[in-house]
Amino acid sequence: MRHPLFAKHEDTLKHALAAIETRGYWSPFAEMPSPKVYGEGSNEHGEGAFNAHLNNAFSLDQPSNGGSVGAERSPYGFALGIRYPKADVDALIETATAAQRAWRAAGPETWVGVSLEIVARLNRASFEIAYSVMHTTGQAFMMAFQAGGPHAQDRALEAIACAWAELRRVPAEAYWEKPQGKNPPLAMKKRFTIVPRGIGLVLGCSTFPTWNAYPGLFADLATGNAVIVKPHPGAILPLAITVRIARDVLREAGFDPNVVTLLATDPEDGALVQELALRPPIRLIDFTGSMQNGTWLERHAHHAHVFTEKAGVNQIILDSVDDLHAAARNIAFSLALYSGQMCTAPQNMYVPRNGVRTAQGHASFEEVAQALADAMQKLLSDAARGVEILGAIQNDDVARRIDEARSLGRVLVESRSIQHPAFPRARVLTPLMLQLDAIADIRTFSSEWFGPISFVIATDSTAHSLKLAESIAAEHGALTLSVYSTNEATVEGAYDAAIKSGVALSVNLTGGVFVNQSAAFSDFHGTGANPAANAALTDSAFVANRFRVVQSRAHVPPLAAQAQASQSA
Amino acid sequence: MRHPLFAKHEDTLKHALAAIETRGYWSPFAEMPSPKVYGEGSNEHGEGAFNAHLNNAFSLDQPSNGGSVGAERSPYGFALGIRYPKADVDALIETATAAQRAWRAAGPETWVGVSLEIVARLNRASFEIAYSVMHTTGQAFMMAFQAGGPHAQDRALEAIACAWAELRRVPAEAYWEKPQGKNPPLAMKKRFTIVPRGIGLVLGCSTFPTWNAYPGLFADLATGNAVIVKPHPGAILPLAITVRIARDVLREAGFDPNVVTLLATDPEDGALVQELALRPPIRLIDFTGSMQNGTWLERHAHHAHVFTEKAGVNQIILDSVDDLHAAARNIAFSLALYSGQMCTAPQNMYVPRNGVRTAQGHASFEEVAQALADAMQKLLSDAARGVEILGAIQNDDVARRIDEARSLGRVLVESRSIQHPAFPRARVLTPLMLQLDAIADIRTFSSEWFGPISFVIATDSTAHSLKLAESIAAEHGALTLSVYSTNEATVEGAYDAAIKSGVALSVNLTGGVFVNQSAAFSDFHGTGANPAANAALTDSAFVANRFRVVQSRAHVPPLAAQAQASQSA
Repeated sequence: MRHPLFAKHEDTLKHALAAIETRGYWSPFAEMPSPKVYGEGSNEHGEGAFNAHLNNAFSLDQPSNGGSVGAERSPYGFALGIRYPKADVDALIETATAAQRAWRAAGPETWVGVSLEIVARLNRASFEIAYSVMHTTGQAFMMAFQAGGPHAQDRALEAIACAWAELRRVPAEAYWEKPQGKNPPLAMKKRFTIVPRGIGLVLGCSTFPTWNAYPGLFADLATGNAVIVKPHPGAILPLAITVRIARDVLREAGFDPNVVTLLATDPEDGALVQELALRPPIRLIDFTGSMQNGTWLERHAHHAHVFTEKAGVNQIILDSVDDLHAAARNIAFSLALYSGQMCTAPQNMYVPRNGVRTAQGHASFEEVAQALADAMQKLLSDAARGVEILGAIQNDDVARRIDEARSLGRVLVESRSIQHPAFPRARVLTPLMLQLDAIADIRTFSSEWFGPISFVIATDSTAHSLKLAESIAAEHGALTLSVYSTNEATVEGAYDAAIKSGVALSVNLTGGVFVNQSAAFSDFHGTGANPAANAALTDSAFVANRFRVVQSRAHVPPLAAQAQASQSA
Repeated sequence: MRHPLFAKHEDTLKHALAAIETRGYWSPFAEMPSPKVYGEGSNEHGEGAFNAHLNNAFSLDQPSNGGSVGAERSPYGFALGIRYPKADVDALIETATAAQRAWRAAGPETWVGVSLEIVARLNRASFEIAYSVMHTTGQAFMMAFQAGGPHAQDRALEAIACAWAELRRVPAEAYWEKPQGKNPPLAMKKRFTIVPRGIGLVLGCSTFPTWNAYPGLFADLATGNAVIVKPHPGAILPLAITVRIARDVLREAGFDPNVVTLLATDPEDGALVQELALRPPIRLIDFTGSMQNGTWLERHAHHAHVFTEKAGVNQIILDSVDDLHAAARNIAFSLALYSGQMCTAPQNMYVPRNGVRTAQGHASFEEVAQALADAMQKLLSDAARGVEILGAIQNDDVARRIDEARSLGRVLVESRSIQHPAFPRARVLTPLMLQLDAIADIRTFSSEWFGPISFVIATDSTAHSLKLAESIAAEHGALTLSVYSTNEATVEGAYDAAIKSGVALSVNLTGGVFVNQSAAFSDFHGTGANPAANAALTDSAFVANRFRVVQSRAHVPPLAAQAQASQSA
C-alpha cells in the first residue's frame, strides 16, 4: 500500500521526474511573493513569525544539554538575540541512531512521501523563511524570498526526485529462473531491500543557508537516512525553522522526530564540528563553505561519503558583442546582485588589450572597461533601488576584503557605503571594480576574492583569455563561466575550455538571465569536475551512494511447476 | 547518427537493461564450453593460442621502455615463461592522456558501442582466456571457462548497460522557456556534454583476473575514460589478452588504441603501483585485492574515485534443516570449489552447541559437524573428480596458511595433498575443516583465513550465531551470508542481520545454487555497506561518478516567436 503522503504528492513527483529528463523549465512553487498565491496576509504573517523569534528562545523538543547557543546578527544592523538549545554531540548521534531504526524500515515510498510533504510545508512558510534568510545572510528581501524559499524548495524537490529515480530502479522482489538443459530449471525468489547509510550531516553556509543545505538534507531523507543539520553559526534561523517543520511532519506521520535534528553552534565551535564529522555513525556529509574546511573533510572523513561545494573563481570572457551596453548591464547586475556574495558571481572579466568588436564598431579596452564601470554606476545610482539588488554584506571579513583589494590595481569603480533607507545601520557597500593586467597580476586574480570585488583584466587576445579561464577554473575551481562573442568558433572554443575545466558556460547573456542563476530541474549547479565542488546539484551520483541494496535469495519451485501444481489442485 | 557498433549491439543492450530492471535470469553468453555454440575446434584453437603464449614475448604495440617483465607460474606446476613489454609510468599516462582526447569527444553511443564490441570479441576468445585463467589462478578448467569467460563477460556487459542507463538520462540538448507574466518568456537553448573523468586505473587480482577487473574496465570505457590495466603480477596473461583485444577493436573503430594500455609488473613492483595511483591524471581506481592495499588506496588517493573489493569473513548459520545431508553437500561444495579461494566462499559455520532440528529428528552438534565433514570427504573421495572442483592453490601463501591453521582447533577434515592426474606437479590441497568454540576462539574466526580453511563453530544458540554473524560482517566485512532454517522468523532474523551488516543473504541452499555464486543482472556482488567492499557490482553508484556533465546555455527566440517567424516567412 502506498503511503498517503506519497499518493498526495505523486503527481508533483512525476512532473519533477519529467522535468529532470527534458531539463526544460518547470517549478511547482511560485517565485513571486504574491498574496494571490501565498494567501492574503501571508507576508505580514511571515514577518510576524520572524519578529516573534527575535530575542527569544527557539524551542525544539530534541535532546539538549540544557545550555543554549546563538549569536546571529542581521547584516541590516541588529542582533537577532535568538537562543537555540545547545545539543551534546553524543546525545544527538544516539537519538538519531534510535530514530533511524523505524525510519529505515519504512521504505522508499514513505521516505519520499514524507520528504515531499516537508517541502510542501516549507513552501507555506516561505515568508517566515524569507525574513530569516534576509536577516542572517544580508540578502535583499526579494532574493531572500526566491532563493531562500521557492528556489531552494525546487532544489529540495529535485534531490528527492533524483533519489526516487534511483530507488525505484531496484525491484522489491524478483523471480530468477536459470535453464538447466534437460533438467528442471533452477528457480529462486529474490528480495531486495534498500538500506540507508545511517546518519547524514549537513553543514550549512552563511549566504544561502536553505538553498545550499536542502539538496543534501532531502537527498539523505528521501533515501531513509537520519540527518543532523549543522547550520553556519551566522545563519541558524532559516535551518532551525526548516528542522522544526521537518520534525512536525515526521511526528504527524508517526515517526520519531529525531530523524531530523539541529546542531546549533557558536562561531568558536569549529573543533566540535570536526569531531562530529569524524564520528563513525556519520556516513554522509554535505558541506558548503570554504575551500579549507571542504578539503579537510574530503581528506579526513574517510568513513563517510563527502559532498562539497567550496570556492572558485568565476570568469567572463569578452571577445565581441552586438550590444556592448546590454552586455555591460547584464554583467553589472551579476556583479552587484547580493554584493557578489554568491558562489556563482563573476570575478574576472577578460578583455583583449586591443579591444573588442561591437555592432557599433571597435571598442578599445578602455571603452569596454568604462562601459562596465558606467553600467555599475548607473545600476546603483538610486540608493533605494540599489539596496534591493545589493542587500547587505554578510560579515566583516567581506568588508575587510574590499578594503584589502582596493590597492590591487587601478580602481574603475570605487566601493562606497550606502545608507539603507529602511535599516540605517545596515552594512551596505557597493561593488569595487579594478583594472588588472593578465600577466603582471595573475597571482592576484587566480584566487577567489569573495564579495563585491571584480577585475577587468587586459589580456593579449581572446585566445589568451580562454587559456587563462580554462587553467584557473581547472586549478582553482569555478562554478560559472561566461562568454560574449559573436564568433561561433570562439563560443565553441569557450565551450571546449569549459568542458576541459569542468565548468558550466553561459553564452552572450544580455537579457533577463544572469550567469549567477542556476535553475533546478534544468541547470546542473556545479559539475564535480573542478576544485570548486566535488558534486553536482543534482545528478545520479549525488544520490545513488546514499543508500545500498541488500538482497536475500531462496529457492522456489519453478513457475512451470507452480502452474502445474495449481492446475492439478 | 548512431555509431555502427552501437547499432550492431543495441538489441543486446536493450535486453541487458531489461534484465537489470527485473533482475531475472539472463545472459547472452553460453556458459557451457560447447563446440556447438563456440564452434568446432574452438577448444583446441583456444588451447593452442594459450600454448603459443608460453615462453614467448607477448607483443603489444604500446609504449614500452624496451625492457620486459613477467614471472607467472601455473599453479598446475610450471612457469609460463611469458615476457610482457615493460612500460614506463610517465609514458603510459602521457599516451593515455593523448589517446583520451579523441575518445572523449566521440560521445556516449560510440563509447558504449565500442565497449560492447570488445565484450563480443572477448566472448569469442573465451577458450584462450579460459586456459590463461586456469594457468594463472589455478582454477579448474570448467570454472576458468565460466567465471573467466562468459560470466566475466556478463559482468562487463552489466557495467556497460548500467553506464548507458545513466548516460542516456542526460539529454544532449534542452529548450528552456520561463514565463515572465505579460512579458515575452525567457527562452534558452541548453547543451549538455558528458565529460569523462580522464584516466582510470584497474588493479586486478590473482584469483579472478577477468571477472573482477571487467566491471571497472568497462564502466570506465563506456563512460569515455582511458584505462590503464594493471594485472596482479601472478595473473597477467588473461588481462593482457583482454587489453590486446580491446586495442584491436579501438584501432578498427578508428581510435588510438592507447585508450586501453597494460601495465604488467613483477611481484616486487608494489611501490610503482602506489606511485601511479597517486598521480593526478588517474581519476578512477578499481581495485580488487587485500584489505591493506585497498584501505591504503581509499585513504590516500583523494584525487581519484576509488572502488574497492577487499577481504571479508563469509558465514553460514545453521539453525534447522529439512535434510541435513543435502545442506552439508551444498556447503561442502561451496567450501571445496576452487579450494575456497573465492571472495564469496564461506569460512565460519555456526552450529548451536545443543544441535539443530532436522526433518529426521534432532541432530547434535557433533552429528552436524560430522555430516559436514563426511560431505566434504565424500565430495573429494575421487581424486580425478576432486581436482575438477578444487583446482589448484594459487600461491604459496595459501598453502602456508593451511599449515598455520591446522593447530587452531580440533581437525574435522584434514587437508591433504592430491596428485593431479594430468598435472603431476600441480599444487592441489584439499580443504581443512576445524571445530572451534564461539567464545574461546572468537579472535581466530573473526579474521579472514583466505583459502580452503573453514570452521564449524559451536555457539550458545541461533540467536548467538546471528549476533556473531552480524557483528563480524559489520566489523570485518563479508560478501556472503547463508542461513539454514525451517523457521520463518529465524530466516527473517538472518535477513535483518544481513541488512544491518550490509551483506547478501542466501537461504536454505541445498540444490544447484551455491552461496559463492553471484549472477550478473540479478545478484548484486558486494553491497558497499561493510568493510569487504566500498562498491557493489553493479549499481548506479558504481558508474554515475565516472563522468560529469558540463553545460552551455544561450538565449534563443521563444518557440512561439520562432513559429510566428516561420509562418510569416
